[in-house]
Amino acid sequence: MTALFLGEFLGTAVLILLGGGVVAGVLLAKSKSHNAGWIVVATGWAFAVTCGIFVAKAFGAPGALNPVGPLADLVQGNGTAADHLAMIAAEFLGAFCGAVFVWLHYLPHWKETSDPAAKLGVFCTAPAIRDPMANLLSEIIGTFVLVLVASAISKASAGSLETPFVGLVVWAIGLSLGGTTGYAINPARDLGPRLAHAVLPIAGKGGSDWSYAWIPVVGPFVGGVAAAVLFKLIHDATGIPAPGR
Amino acid sequence: MTALFLGEFLGTAVLILLGGGVVAGVLLAKSKSHNAGWIVVATGWAFAVTCGIFVAKAFGAPGALNPVGPLADLVQGNGTAADHLAMIAAEFLGAFCGAVFVWLHYLPHWKETSDPAAKLGVFCTAPAIRDPMANLLSEIIGTFVLVLVASAISKASAGSLETPFVGLVVWAIGLSLGGTTGYAINPARDLGPRLAHAVLPIAGKGGSDWSYAWIPVVGPFVGGVAAAVLFKLIHDATGIPAPGR
Amino acid sequence: MTALFLGEFLGTAVLILLGGGVVAGVLLAKSKSHNAGWIVVATGWAFAVTCGIFVAKAFGAPGALNPVGPLADLVQGNGTAADHLAMIAAEFLGAFCGAVFVWLHYLPHWKETSDPAAKLGVFCTAPAIRDPMANLLSEIIGTFVLVLVASAISKASAGSLETPFVGLVVWAIGLSLGGTTGYAINPARDLGPRLAHAVLPIAGKGGSDWSYAWIPVVGPFVGGVAAAVLFKLIHDATGIPAPGR
Amino acid sequence: MTALFLGEFLGTAVLILLGGGVVAGVLLAKSKSHNAGWIVVATGWAFAVTCGIFVAKAFGAPGALNPVGPLADLVQGNGTAADHLAMIAAEFLGAFCGAVFVWLHYLPHWKETSDPAAKLGVFCTAPAIRDPMANLLSEIIGTFVLVLVASAISKASAGSLETPFVGLVVWAIGLSLGGTTGYAINPARDLGPRLAHAVLPIAGKGGSDWSYAWIPVVGPFVGGVAAAVLFKLIHDATGIPAPGR
Repeated sequence: MTALFLGEFLGTAVLILLGGGVVAGVLLAKSKSHNAGWIVVATGWAFAVTCGIFVAKAFGAPGALNPVGPLADLVQGNGTAADHLAMIAAEFLGAFCGAVFVWLHYLPHWKETSDPAAKLGVFCTAPAIRDPMANLLSEIIGTFVLVLVASAISKASAGSLETPFVGLVVWAIGLSLGGTTGYAINPARDLGPRLAHAVLPIAGKGGSDWSYAWIPVVGPFVGGVAAAVLFKLIHDATGIPAPGR
Repeated sequence: MTALFLGEFLGTAVLILLGGGVVAGVLLAKSKSHNAGWIVVATGWAFAVTCGIFVAKAFGAPGALNPVGPLADLVQGNGTAADHLAMIAAEFLGAFCGAVFVWLHYLPHWKETSDPAAKLGVFCTAPAIRDPMANLLSEIIGTFVLVLVASAISKASAGSLETPFVGLVVWAIGLSLGGTTGYAINPARDLGPRLAHAVLPIAGKGGSDWSYAWIPVVGPFVGGVAAAVLFKLIHDATGIPAPGR
Repeated sequence: MTALFLGEFLGTAVLILLGGGVVAGVLLAKSKSHNAGWIVVATGWAFAVTCGIFVAKAFGAPGALNPVGPLADLVQGNGTAADHLAMIAAEFLGAFCGAVFVWLHYLPHWKETSDPAAKLGVFCTAPAIRDPMANLLSEIIGTFVLVLVASAISKASAGSLETPFVGLVVWAIGLSLGGTTGYAINPARDLGPRLAHAVLPIAGKGGSDWSYAWIPVVGPFVGGVAAAVLFKLIHDATGIPAPGR
Repeated sequence: MTALFLGEFLGTAVLILLGGGVVAGVLLAKSKSHNAGWIVVATGWAFAVTCGIFVAKAFGAPGALNPVGPLADLVQGNGTAADHLAMIAAEFLGAFCGAVFVWLHYLPHWKETSDPAAKLGVFCTAPAIRDPMANLLSEIIGTFVLVLVASAISKASAGSLETPFVGLVVWAIGLSLGGTTGYAINPARDLGPRLAHAVLPIAGKGGSDWSYAWIPVVGPFVGGVAAAVLFKLIHDATGIPAPGR
């Protein structure tokens, strides 16, 4: 369980340091990558995922970096509940710590940035058009695609390529489905850094938009578990063997 | 045949959800990726192809995601007609369903977007300069390159890399040959979503441009079958063994 | 020899169709990828190389797609002169034919584009600052890097990854060294399409800038052969085994 | 030792020629890639790393291209001091020579560029907001991530993919953490070219900003050695085997 906890913790911290970092670079004033565009944001998050999984795996963890993975296993009765809960805790804690490092890395840029919404955007997602049911649906669809395609990749026996392939799925989702809610598709990725935003002494920060916070938690859980269950159902129904985890 | 149908259906649905999604993000008003540029469009479609093929293969299908593949096999007498027709039906149906999910994912953005042509552009292709013979030629050339290079890749025994390599070919075609007609290079990719556009209650939509619809169907069939036949002819004529499918 | 000729011919034609195509999309008026930026140009050329090599290899050729490769072998006495000359001829002929297809693919866009230099730029390179000795030096340095890194990659036993790795080198050179002369780094890539520009009935074309044409021929030959010879010399002098071809 | 020295020298020269080259293309006036954006800069540096490592490995060197690697081995008592010092010397010398080639490659562009800071930026890093402690922290964090993730990758037994995977880490760091100090994350990468800037007869150059020069040397050493030591400590403490080098 030490390896599970430590690996998911470090991997998720790297994920958020790099993922929050790319948004900080694009949104914060005077950054060299200021206004660098959506291609930079989506590419940065994809590589953040790849780097985080490499780190998690080096310490013996599966590298889900996303509570949706262990939750889907919990729901389906795979593995032990204690392991899944340790992973989930490690992922939220790692996401919080990664966000603290983003704040430190870009330390002189916070007071140069006037817009509180831009500062919040470094930590957590916000919808392009605020519409709770539509936003929830976007997060459900995005995470459904994430888990469906990642499950398909895990069947492909891709060896050391599996890690960048999962990064590629996140790249695809960011490019294609990120325009609506900013693609949390991971409850830890959104809630951990949102909490960091709430407690850190960020120069000129505004509120942490807690009224929206449930959507990037509930949406990914619903979409991710649905995809995992459906994937298994179809494989069982058609006789195609279910993928090993 | 279940695996063939189900895999091609799900894979093509993922292809269109992600492929149509990237265009929606770039074209629809208030999207976070609005006006993100051609690099985002071409990269998004390439990864859409890669993700779709991974899904199709996980369910035991070849992952053509394009009626041009089974049609070329049909013309050349490879395999059974029933299988090819099942694949073609699944691809058109999957493309239709994927387009419905694009509409749902970007639901609040349709009424914020004033230009009906932008909305149609999320679903299907339109020429940069309307000139039927030139547009047809563009689709023939683009699909010829797709099938020629994909056939070459299938000879390279690339294992789990074959899937991203085919995505790379689509990336290349999008970057290099997409400027003229928006590179349908796949009859299902264009006709399925065009039908979805016609029947869905999209806020403020215009016509579905049916007068153009035959070009992204006929062009890809002509170019794709020509490349498949030529590839086999050259291999037979030169004694270099034809690639397995 | 048939395989050598046919493979290099088809591969170089694909290289130029896709490579010239990406420039056409960025430079020609009313293209959907008009003004899409340097990232699109450099990425397009890189994937053009990768796709071209896949095609050449599928027909049994080495996939140099560049007369610098066979010329370096000729200079060093590797292989037979007839094979090398067949490859060089196929590469020039393939480049010419690929350029004809670029012209056809973008047929309605030529008369919409007013600048003759943009039209010429679709076919061949032109210097950012015209200075023959500096331009020659740029082409020497660029091709030196190409051959040095590609030779290093051929030692890495990368299997089916070798083809995209060589594309990556061209991507790197385009991004980093392309700003000066537009990185011909290949005599066939520049001279073949320049000849096509001279003979094709392109709407509103200007001159083919023949006074510059020797630089992207001589520079690549000098830089490429120098790198090949140096690479072998160092390996012989240090006892590190020379890479197989 | 010859192979170590020669390989690290040539590899680092290629790294800086391509890495400095991409910055030159983006910053120098009249370049074809002028103002091409952060995606071009970060991608160019990533591929520069990949190409440099390929070259170093082809001559039998490990391809660290960064004194942080041998220094961490020195601190931890791995290998022999003479080898580590030879590598460090080769890396600084290679970085200096690579910068000279950047100057030559873009020779006509220096006098066309009016801003001395842009010219210096081709050679070495400068902070977005000058704040020594914050800048030092940024370099420490960036290099910590580099060494942590690269160590994790070296455990993944990725074969010939290890080289592009390390490039991907640098790509990630550039996109996500480069906005503050321009990510030296390598003492040789900054100090070698800064020295070249000081001694080369660059048209219209200004000062070499020596007051900042210690930060991209000390920061990477601190962050890189800390990550290497921590990585080993955790592996020893948890019983997970330490990665081979």
